[in-house]
Amino acid sequence: MKRALFLGRFQPYHHGHHSVMERIAREADEVIIAIGSAQSSHSAENPFTAGERIVMITRALEGLPVPSYVLPIEDIQRNALYASHIVSLTPPFEAVYSNNPLIKELFQAAGFEVRSSPFVERDRYQGSHIRQQMLEGERWRELVPSAVAHVIDEIDGARRYRRILEEAAVKL
Amino acid sequence: MKRALFLGRFQPYHHGHHSVMERIAREADEVIIAIGSAQSSHSAENPFTAGERIVMITRALEGLPVPSYVLPIEDIQRNALYASHIVSLTPPFEAVYSNNPLIKELFQAAGFEVRSSPFVERDRYQGSHIRQQMLEGERWRELVPSAVAHVIDEIDGARRYRRILEEAAVKL
Amino acid sequence: MKRALFLGRFQPYHHGHHSVMERIAREADEVIIAIGSAQSSHSAENPFTAGERIVMITRALEGLPVPSYVLPIEDIQRNALYASHIVSLTPPFEAVYSNNPLIKELFQAAGFEVRSSPFVERDRYQGSHIRQQMLEGERWRELVPSAVAHVIDEIDGARRYRRILEEAAVKL
Amino acid sequence: MKRALFLGRFQPYHHGHHSVMERIAREADEVIIAIGSAQSSHSAENPFTAGERIVMITRALEGLPVPSYVLPIEDIQRNALYASHIVSLTPPFEAVYSNNPLIKELFQAAGFEVRSSPFVERDRYQGSHIRQQMLEGERWRELVPSAVAHVIDEIDGARRYRRILEEAAVKL
Amino acid sequence: MKRALFLGRFQPYHHGHHSVMERIAREADEVIIAIGSAQSSHSAENPFTAGERIVMITRALEGLPVPSYVLPIEDIQRNALYASHIVSLTPPFEAVYSNNPLIKELFQAAGFEVRSSPFVERDRYQGSHIRQQMLEGERWRELVPSAVAHVIDEIDGARRYRRILEEAAVKL
Amino acid sequence: MKRALFLGRFQPYHHGHHSVMERIAREADEVIIAIGSAQSSHSAENPFTAGERIVMITRALEGLPVPSYVLPIEDIQRNALYASHIVSLTPPFEAVYSNNPLIKELFQAAGFEVRSSPFVERDRYQGSHIRQQMLEGERWRELVPSAVAHVIDEIDGARRYRRILEEAAVKL
Repeated sequence: MKRALFLGRFQPYHHGHHSVMERIAREADEVIIAIGSAQSSHSAENPFTAGERIVMITRALEGLPVPSYVLPIEDIQRNALYASHIVSLTPPFEAVYSNNPLIKELFQAAGFEVRSSPFVERDRYQGSHIRQQMLEGERWRELVPSAVAHVIDEIDGARRYRRILEEAAVKL
Repeated sequence: MKRALFLGRFQPYHHGHHSVMERIAREADEVIIAIGSAQSSHSAENPFTAGERIVMITRALEGLPVPSYVLPIEDIQRNALYASHIVSLTPPFEAVYSNNPLIKELFQAAGFEVRSSPFVERDRYQGSHIRQQMLEGERWRELVPSAVAHVIDEIDGARRYRRILEEAAVKL
Repeated sequence: MKRALFLGRFQPYHHGHHSVMERIAREADEVIIAIGSAQSSHSAENPFTAGERIVMITRALEGLPVPSYVLPIEDIQRNALYASHIVSLTPPFEAVYSNNPLIKELFQAAGFEVRSSPFVERDRYQGSHIRQQMLEGERWRELVPSAVAHVIDEIDGARRYRRILEEAAVKL
Repeated sequence: MKRALFLGRFQPYHHGHHSVMERIAREADEVIIAIGSAQSSHSAENPFTAGERIVMITRALEGLPVPSYVLPIEDIQRNALYASHIVSLTPPFEAVYSNNPLIKELFQAAGFEVRSSPFVERDRYQGSHIRQQMLEGERWRELVPSAVAHVIDEIDGARRYRRILEEAAVKL
Repeated sequence: MKRALFLGRFQPYHHGHHSVMERIAREADEVIIAIGSAQSSHSAENPFTAGERIVMITRALEGLPVPSYVLPIEDIQRNALYASHIVSLTPPFEAVYSNNPLIKELFQAAGFEVRSSPFVERDRYQGSHIRQQMLEGERWRELVPSAVAHVIDEIDGARRYRRILEEAAVKL
Repeated sequence: MKRALFLGRFQPYHHGHHSVMERIAREADEVIIAIGSAQSSHSAENPFTAGERIVMITRALEGLPVPSYVLPIEDIQRNALYASHIVSLTPPFEAVYSNNPLIKELFQAAGFEVRSSPFVERDRYQGSHIRQQMLEGERWRELVPSAVAHVIDEIDGARRYRRILEEAAVKL
């Protein structure tokens, strides 16, 4: 049995992530989706809570033919310990899927097989781009699975994001 | 749709927990199993890592007719914030199942419905008792679901527990 | 102008504390009441939140002829830094009132004048004794200023304390 | 009785803050001034300690006809918990005064009434502008209440700010 | 070249530790003395600061024919990460000397060679016993290297320990 | 006996640092090299672990005629406590060598003698410049002591730095 780790912040989970998931579904027997920066929310980089991201991902994965663990992972602020941190909080895994150079370096140094998984159309399918679209009231729904768009609409997420960021935040 | 929260440390997951799960399966549509003190392991109170506990619980729940989220939750060391902490890290829920008076108090104060769920044969089906049995080399497998016993044996967990605790720990 | 520091956890503020305050009112021009372990609540040692303790103390001090600062102070878990921690979070002060040997040691080492202020009838006027009375449903109101008893009754504090502690807490 | 919360970092407390305070004095019976980022000092964004800010604000509020609580509040690094964090450390309040969009979002989501209170002449009466004036040796005293200017001069605060920032900090 | 790790809290460094050091000096080319719980001081378990312990150990090691690194290591409160934590903060090492069962378990699991090194006369040569002797004003100097006794006397350490602990600490 | 503190992040230790060390060797009897941000590694600002930096510095100091303590110091995120933090973790010292304005301010406020020690050719002998050279594959070995270059080569440090940073890090 081969278990893969897919690590991201998923702010939000988008088609780029989903195409990696589809590849993992072909190459592994089980997958762990580790939601990084789980403690962060309501900010420019991390608008959604871990709980909201869990719901998005769980719904988006319905129908994917591979059992999955969707786990919130708080940051540890110690890069040298990050791989051990993940290992202690998740079921055992063999392969790591990531495009993040730091993650790749840390897990390779810890002896894991790391697979690059470049997103297709990386300019569009990127969290920062999608959040920018939300901020500007532009089209973002087509960039995420429809189940994710539905969750974001339920929590009125785009409005929340604009409310937090659109006016120049007055420093108290 | 009704979602329930079941909160515990699950050191280890035992028949007492499982009978609560069976009740939840009858009363709710989905269940969140929140694994508290996820950051703790290799200690008298918390021998198993969060990752190990996720595996135990996931296997024990196979066959239970209710979708579940099994989530590691690190402590926050602020009782007054504990309910908000859980809420931010999990999908929305309505009911909380717990026998712990503090947990009941905190979630009731936060407006949740809390259901007591006394374990049957509470003296036997209690984490501290089961760990004591492991320590003394007594019978513990019959106190946990067989899938859990299997996981503990795979990681040689009883031996690990004895190694950590059985000799009087020499203070360096 | 002489400003004094009075440091405690005030769980709850009682007549013993108040007699120290009366002495400080005679010996100093202003007083800082630093509420230690501000982050703790809903526990055996610290049942009340910092916010609740602020209200208790503020009301109990009404009529005392000395201006006061009532400040919540979170713990820092570094004894060697505790005096610097307090200094950074409070207005400047010269004298420290405390009966706690560790506090006395740390502030004397930091160059402050420390005054012992033994409580009268120390067995009765002690936080742990008063909490025990609450737990057992015994008389505790006469041990605290009436304004404090009023605050505790408003939040139904004795009941909360019993709820958290009275039954043997079932370990999940 | 209506109690209002006024939340800021107050680096330093200036006329813009004070005009909000004057409005609160008309609309509420008591006010809590919560000094955020209390743990920060000696930096570009937060030059003054919480203790120094308490003194500034306490003196500036003399004569204001509304009882006040001036409380240091350390950051919690969890936006989703920020409202609960404040609630646990302060007396109960009903209304929140803030211009910060994030603060407004978080407290509205927690069920509080939030009142915007745009500063007059926002370009001048803003902490970052005042700190810049200090850095460049320009006029800043007229932007803060005279009691605040007095406190800053007592601690030689403008010089401290320049010392920390004016030369390009050599990275060790 | 073989480098060994010797891990302890050294409260204080005593003859039992020193005999382990003498063994290490015979078996390794260099030694790392990792001072655990470096953040703790002024408490029953940890009376001395890391700085004081560094001085004690450095002086006691003079004359020992093996180069040494004496390093303060703060706790990490995550047993599963402890070995990685140590590795990131120290030069590379191959062997670990310890009698603590948890330390042995954690470093063996991380792939290190761990050597037990039972203290001779373990009842006498144990930190808790030596601290008890200090507390009761009994003979403790003969239990530590003379250089260590000298450092403790310079800082009046036994008196400090008694001051912190000898009277029943009044709970504020 | 005069002991000096030399505080830096040493990412990496370079000729600029070394010329300060040579000055300290003439002016003090012993030196403490405090390695700040010890918890950080594998990042743009802090590529090397504390353990790696200890090895670099220890080797570079061989031959320097002054006894030294090379100590990892984790950050404390409280500027107002930084001097106390250092004091608690190191042997006693009298003089502090630093060019960092904040460090100078904090230690002078704590009563220490602080000596500026401007680096010669500050543009070249600066950590950020040397890291930039590594990133771009330019000459960096001549900017550090040969012992340091040797350590960096042993751990293939320049390649690691490029791997972490050279491609635009894809935000997951």
